[in-house]
Amino acid sequence: MPAETALVLIDIQAGFDDPAWGARCNPDAEARAASLLAGWRARGAPVIHVRHLSTSPGSPLAPGPGAESKPEVAPLPGEPVFEKTVNSAFIGTGLEDHLRAVGIGALVVCGLTTPHCVSTTCRMAANLGFTVTLAHDACAAFAANADTGWSGAPPMTPQAIHDSAVSHLHGEFVTARAVADILAAP
Amino acid sequence: MPAETALVLIDIQAGFDDPAWGARCNPDAEARAASLLAGWRARGAPVIHVRHLSTSPGSPLAPGPGAESKPEVAPLPGEPVFEKTVNSAFIGTGLEDHLRAVGIGALVVCGLTTPHCVSTTCRMAANLGFTVTLAHDACAAFAANADTGWSGAPPMTPQAIHDSAVSHLHGEFVTARAVADILAAP
Repeated sequence: MPAETALVLIDIQAGFDDPAWGARCNPDAEARAASLLAGWRARGAPVIHVRHLSTSPGSPLAPGPGAESKPEVAPLPGEPVFEKTVNSAFIGTGLEDHLRAVGIGALVVCGLTTPHCVSTTCRMAANLGFTVTLAHDACAAFAANADTGWSGAPPMTPQAIHDSAVSHLHGEFVTARAVADILAAP
Repeated sequence: MPAETALVLIDIQAGFDDPAWGARCNPDAEARAASLLAGWRARGAPVIHVRHLSTSPGSPLAPGPGAESKPEVAPLPGEPVFEKTVNSAFIGTGLEDHLRAVGIGALVVCGLTTPHCVSTTCRMAANLGFTVTLAHDACAAFAANADTGWSGAPPMTPQAIHDSAVSHLHGEFVTARAVADILAAP
């Protein structure tokens, strides 16, 4: 993995422990994100934290304790943190300008949730010209992340939501790889 | 539907008849898009065409006959056409500036393909502050629009690709509605 590849941690925040999101898949996603983070820090490679600050009153991700990063991926002093109010980490933030200013052309992306903020950020990153690797097993989806009400079909499981979201991205916007593979052969 | 709601037709282009995309779902998508278009034109409401011009040599959507709009949704003189080279109709185009300049705050989106250019454009539109209705039955997905190679799972069917993509969007980025409902009760 070239030195100019940044690790981008999306919305790994305490508020996602709130039961409002429903069942989830991939309970080890945060631990795997932490192992990626340790690998990036050990190499002195760039790390970027993205946090969601919901503008919806009562959201688990509204500014406050729920908006804090989970402890296992808490930013260190000097690591850039970009705060956003929508799904894409590139809208209403300085992320694109920052990446171009420091010469970063490739990203490894992980975090929460696969079909919403992770997918939207990966799509925009790729369309803006960045090379994107999606660390799929350091991402997770919740029951609330898909709504079949438009068709009347049964609800999707969190695993099916995650798997379909990754499959829509892989080969078009990202290369999806497992964390162990990324760390073993960047 | 307020007069300032634009119909946005995404990538309904001849090149999608190429067999390279594999099987598809929703063969009536184009006819339904044409009925939306007729409804918008009858009301004198704004219509926006988006076309993909692939930069990949040999792509069915490279500039040439495959890049032309399908006849049933061909632009009329004076209808704006935005050409793009990536999935999002908002990247590398003047679409956002145009919408803001003419005072359009809401979009009805349809076209090809559900999980790629339609989804990406809907996500960005919503994150940029536009209200988005997705005319889900005027969209379609192809077998090539999902790649399960990252997990080794069996391929997704075009219908499953479409349905999951709409469910990821509905309630978060868009309100998904059927064309007949949109036309009957805008």
